[in-house]
Amino acid sequence: MSPRTGRRAGESGTREAVLEAARERFADLGYDGATIRAIAADAGVDSALVHHFYGTKEQLFAEAVGFPAVPSEVLAKVMEGGLTKLGDSVIRSILTLWETDDGAERIAALLRSAVANESAMRMLREFLTSAILRVVAIRLEVADAEFRASLVASQLLGLAMARYVFQLRPLASASLEEIANAIAPTLQRYLTGRISSA
Amino acid sequence: MSPRTGRRAGESGTREAVLEAARERFADLGYDGATIRAIAADAGVDSALVHHFYGTKEQLFAEAVGFPAVPSEVLAKVMEGGLTKLGDSVIRSILTLWETDDGAERIAALLRSAVANESAMRMLREFLTSAILRVVAIRLEVADAEFRASLVASQLLGLAMARYVFQLRPLASASLEEIANAIAPTLQRYLTGRISSA
Repeated sequence: MSPRTGRRAGESGTREAVLEAARERFADLGYDGATIRAIAADAGVDSALVHHFYGTKEQLFAEAVGFPAVPSEVLAKVMEGGLTKLGDSVIRSILTLWETDDGAERIAALLRSAVANESAMRMLREFLTSAILRVVAIRLEVADAEFRASLVASQLLGLAMARYVFQLRPLASASLEEIANAIAPTLQRYLTGRISSA
Repeated sequence: MSPRTGRRAGESGTREAVLEAARERFADLGYDGATIRAIAADAGVDSALVHHFYGTKEQLFAEAVGFPAVPSEVLAKVMEGGLTKLGDSVIRSILTLWETDDGAERIAALLRSAVANESAMRMLREFLTSAILRVVAIRLEVADAEFRASLVASQLLGLAMARYVFQLRPLASASLEEIANAIAPTLQRYLTGRISSA
């Protein structure tokens, strides 16, 4: 997110001020409570400039806290494969994000800070709920959709914790292929299969 | 673990000294490295007295760190139902432990301290590996048994994180029955089903 050539001097400082303001607002008010308007005011710029720099609130949040992806972008890609391949598509997209560059470190750092800090936890919980669980639920168009999405979240959260934070072997040393093959059917059932005994 | 009537005066102080020594040794040397002999020496008592008070190293560890159960005892009970009901039996036993008394609080506190503190993390990782994953793997008698056990650990870890630490709705407010029904088939497949595409 470095400024492109041709922009005016000082843009990089302004971009950083917006990110700083965003981090503070999200930490203080949570994901739902923070607004682009208030973040812009804190940084002394216009809302339009915040949108110009960072796009939507979701995109700004991902950038500000180092979330390893913009969920709506990942979801759009994941849904392309259709409902029957959803589990496989979700786990492979997530693993691709987590396992490249500094993805694993970023997700571990995010989890650590959320567990250590109540405002970071609230921020992440609201983001997961508003930007992921509800969005997935709407797209699923089935009963219990939010419960289904939260089951998926539990398996993915546990995978991240076990592999990156606890580094529990042999899961921590398994290949992406082994993990994807093992976990895809779980996510598929949580999203579209039978989850109750009734 | 308060002293029963009829024991000699000072027993309660001795028991507490053993627990204190155990907490320090486990934190310093991990679960694998700490020995009953060294813990006894630290507390100024005989190893036999430590065994008399707390049983095995596994039982002492569970008592010292507030682990919500002694894994080998839970496993023995879980295996009684046979391999075909393993998933259901595991999730119901775990939920029964987590949802009674201060179980949820204890598991959340354990996870928080492990994430915040490297020696607590090592201690818990070694305990999970030595007292649970390897024991389950031996009982399963299948290929990839440790990988299978670590997949189970990932789902249970994620459930604990999502429900008790993140308090992610609607998972956090779902009934035990809903959770058990949704997650039992996952654990069953991880333990005895097909987990690879090969």
